[in-house]
Amino acid sequence: MNHALVRDEDTFFRGMPLSDGSQSLPPDLIGRRVLDGAISAPIALLKRQALDHNASWMRSFVRQYGISIWPHGKTSMSPTIFRWQLNQGAEWLSLASATQAHVARGAGINRVLIANQVVNTFDLDYLARELTSDPTFEVMCFVDSVAGIQRFASALESAGCPRRIGVFIEVGVPNGRAGVRTVDEALTLARVLAGVPQLQLSGLAGYEGVYTPKDPEGLSKVDRYLEQVVATARAIDAERLFAGEKIILSAGGSKFFDRVAVIFGKAQLSRAVEVVIRCGCYLFHDVGIYEEAMRAVYARDPIASGIGRLRPALEIWAQVQSRPEPTRAIVAMGRRESSYDAGLPTPQSWCRPERSAQARPLEHHRVIALNDQHAFLDMPADSPLDIGDLVGFGISHPCTVFDKWQMLCVVDDDYVVTEIVRTSFT
Amino acid sequence: MNHALVRDEDTFFRGMPLSDGSQSLPPDLIGRRVLDGAISAPIALLKRQALDHNASWMRSFVRQYGISIWPHGKTSMSPTIFRWQLNQGAEWLSLASATQAHVARGAGINRVLIANQVVNTFDLDYLARELTSDPTFEVMCFVDSVAGIQRFASALESAGCPRRIGVFIEVGVPNGRAGVRTVDEALTLARVLAGVPQLQLSGLAGYEGVYTPKDPEGLSKVDRYLEQVVATARAIDAERLFAGEKIILSAGGSKFFDRVAVIFGKAQLSRAVEVVIRCGCYLFHDVGIYEEAMRAVYARDPIASGIGRLRPALEIWAQVQSRPEPTRAIVAMGRRESSYDAGLPTPQSWCRPERSAQARPLEHHRVIALNDQHAFLDMPADSPLDIGDLVGFGISHPCTVFDKWQMLCVVDDDYVVTEIVRTSFT
Repeated sequence: MNHALVRDEDTFFRGMPLSDGSQSLPPDLIGRRVLDGAISAPIALLKRQALDHNASWMRSFVRQYGISIWPHGKTSMSPTIFRWQLNQGAEWLSLASATQAHVARGAGINRVLIANQVVNTFDLDYLARELTSDPTFEVMCFVDSVAGIQRFASALESAGCPRRIGVFIEVGVPNGRAGVRTVDEALTLARVLAGVPQLQLSGLAGYEGVYTPKDPEGLSKVDRYLEQVVATARAIDAERLFAGEKIILSAGGSKFFDRVAVIFGKAQLSRAVEVVIRCGCYLFHDVGIYEEAMRAVYARDPIASGIGRLRPALEIWAQVQSRPEPTRAIVAMGRRESSYDAGLPTPQSWCRPERSAQARPLEHHRVIALNDQHAFLDMPADSPLDIGDLVGFGISHPCTVFDKWQMLCVVDDDYVVTEIVRTSFT
Repeated sequence: MNHALVRDEDTFFRGMPLSDGSQSLPPDLIGRRVLDGAISAPIALLKRQALDHNASWMRSFVRQYGISIWPHGKTSMSPTIFRWQLNQGAEWLSLASATQAHVARGAGINRVLIANQVVNTFDLDYLARELTSDPTFEVMCFVDSVAGIQRFASALESAGCPRRIGVFIEVGVPNGRAGVRTVDEALTLARVLAGVPQLQLSGLAGYEGVYTPKDPEGLSKVDRYLEQVVATARAIDAERLFAGEKIILSAGGSKFFDRVAVIFGKAQLSRAVEVVIRCGCYLFHDVGIYEEAMRAVYARDPIASGIGRLRPALEIWAQVQSRPEPTRAIVAMGRRESSYDAGLPTPQSWCRPERSAQARPLEHHRVIALNDQHAFLDMPADSPLDIGDLVGFGISHPCTVFDKWQMLCVVDDDYVVTEIVRTSFT
C-alpha cells in the first residue's frame, strides 16, 4: 500500500510565481499585471471582457432563436467556468463522460447531460448510486445500442433507483462517430426503451461536428444530416415513443450551431420541441478554426451577424528564450502549453516586461514548429523581439489548450489578474 | 481576493474508481486488476517489468561506454519517477525550465540541470534565492547569449549568492533551436563568462534531436553537428576557459544518444571529459518514433544491440463505447488521453473485462482519427470487439502522453496495480 507515493508530492501550477519552494497552492496572483513581468511565464490568460461579450452574444443568439444552450463543459473542465455558464441561464451542463460528471457533481452541479453512451461498469454504478441517493441530482445520457441501454438499465435496477432516467438516442453519420445510422435502428432502440422501466426516451441527439466548413460540401452535409435527425424524430414520434411533455432535439458543436437552430427549430412533432445546442467553445473562441467557422456563420445567418462577432478570450503569453539567428526566436512555450491539433499558435502582440508596458501588435511573425517545450518563431530580421520579451499568442481550438493547464488567470483589459480558474481533467 | 475560487475545487483523477462523490484523493487502487474491469477507463499504465528492463538497459549502456546519464525529467514530470532514476545512479536530473526545477526541489531533489537558458526574472530570482540559502542545492543552466549570462549573473549577485554556478554554453544547429551557431560566438561567450564572478563554464551542451532518423542524411548531420560541438570545445579549451577539473560535454535525446557516446567519447581536451547524455524517453520507450529510432541504433551500435532491446512500458487502456458500423468502433479515448503529435496510438490487445480476463492480441485494427474524447477504430468486419471491451493501446512519444495524466498506475505483468505515480506539469 504505497500511498506515500500519492501524497508526498506538492501540487505546482504553471504561471505561479516561484516565491516559496514549499508553496503548494497558488499564491496571491490577483492584482498582478502580466505585462509588468509580475508573473512567471508561460501563462494562459482568459480575457474578462471577451468572456462577458461572448456570453452575452450567445444569450442573444439562443433568445432570438427561442432555443436552449446546454454548454459543453468538456472544453474547459473548470467547475468555476461551469458555474459562470449555468448562472448565465443554462439549465443543464453537457459533459463527455461520467468522470467529467463526477467533477461537476463535486462542484455542486446537479443537472448533467453526458453526451455519450456510458459503458463502464464503475461509471454506471456511480451514476446509479448517486441518482438513487439524491433526488436533486439529474443526469441524462446518450444511447446508441441495445447493449448500452441494457448496461445503464441494469445499473439503475441494481441500485434500486426509483426514477426513470432520461436518455437520448444518438443519431450518427455514415463513416462518422457514435450513433445509429438509420431510422430503423433508431426505431428499434425507441421500442426497446419503451419496455425498460428504468429509462425514458427524452429526445434525439446528434453531432454534426464530424463535418467541416473546409469541405465545400460541408454545409449541405450538415443540413442533410440534421434533416435526417428530424425525420428520425418524426418516425419515433409517429409511434408515440417519446416520453415527457416535450421532445428534445439536440446537436451543435461550435461550427454549425446556427443550422441546428434553423433546422431543428422547424421540426413539427406531436408535442412541443425543445432545441438544445451544446456548443463548448463559443465562450472562449479563438483566432483559428472557430474564427474561420464563425466567419461562415456570420455570412449565412442574419441573426448571428446581427448580434456582432465573438471575440478571442484565450491567450498564452510566453517569453523569448533565445534569439539564435536574425530571423528566428525560440520562445519558451511548446506542446505542453499550446494546442497544435488544429493549427499552431499565432503570435499577435508583444511587450518588454516592465511597469506600464503596453501590448504592441506583432506582425509578420509566425510559429513554424512546436517542440515539447519550445516554439520556433520565423520573423523579419528587423523584429523588435529580444531575449526576455513577452509574446502574446492567439490559439486555435480552446479544448486542447485547457487540457494543458491546471490553472488559468482571468485578466482585465490592462492584463491585470482579477480571478483564477482551476481545471480538473479526469 | 477571490481565493475561494482556487480552493473550492476538489481534485479528480482519470482512472479513479468513482466510489465516492466527495473523494478528493485517489482511493486504493493498489491490488486491483485492470483487465478484470476493476478500474474506470481510460487509464494510463506503466508496466513494471518493462520499466525495470529499460532502466537496466540504460545502466549497461552508459557503463559500457564509460559515460553518464542525467535523465531528462521533463518527459514524465513525476517526482516519483525522478527518484527512481536518481536511485539508479544518475547524479543529476535534467529539466527544461526553472518551474520544473521547482517541482523537483519540492520533491527533495538537489542536483538539477536546467537544459535551457533561463530568462524569466521570477525564475532567476527563485533560483538565486534557493542557491544562496541552501548550500546543498545545486543547479546548472544553459546560456547562449550575453543577455542570458547577464540576467543569471545579475540575479545571483542581487541574492548575494556565495558560490559560482556552473553553466554550459549551448551549441545549436543552423536553422535549429536555441544555441550559438559558430565557434566564434561560443568563444565570445566563454570569454565573457571568464569575467563574471557569479558563473563558471562547466562545459558545452547541445541537442541533436532537431534532426530525425527519417531523413536519410539525418545520421550524418547529427555526426557533423556533434563534431562541431567537439571542435568548439577544443577552441574554448585552447584558451583555458573551462572551469573545474573536468570538462562536461552533453547532448543526447532518445534517438541518437549512441552517436553522442561515440563522438564526445573520443574528444581529446586538456582535462578529463565527462560525456553526459540526457535521454528522457528510454525508460518508457514506445511503439512509434522511438521504436523506429532505436531500430536504427541497434543496427549501427554494437554496444546497444549487445544489451538487447528496449521495451514499451507505457500503455493506455480504454473502452469500446460504440460499434456503429461493422468495421468501425468508437473508443472512449481521445486527444485528452493519448499523444498524437508523432503518430496515433496503436491498438495492440484487448479483453472483455471480467475476472481472470487475459489480454489477447488485436491485429488489423487501426486508429484513423482522434477527437477530443474519442478514437475512431477501423477494423475487420469479424473483429471480436464489442461495446464495453477494453482495448490496450501502445503509443508514440511518451512526453505528450505524460502531460495528459495527473496519475498513472504501475502494473505487474498480470495488469495488477502495484503503485501509483503522480505528475506535476508546471
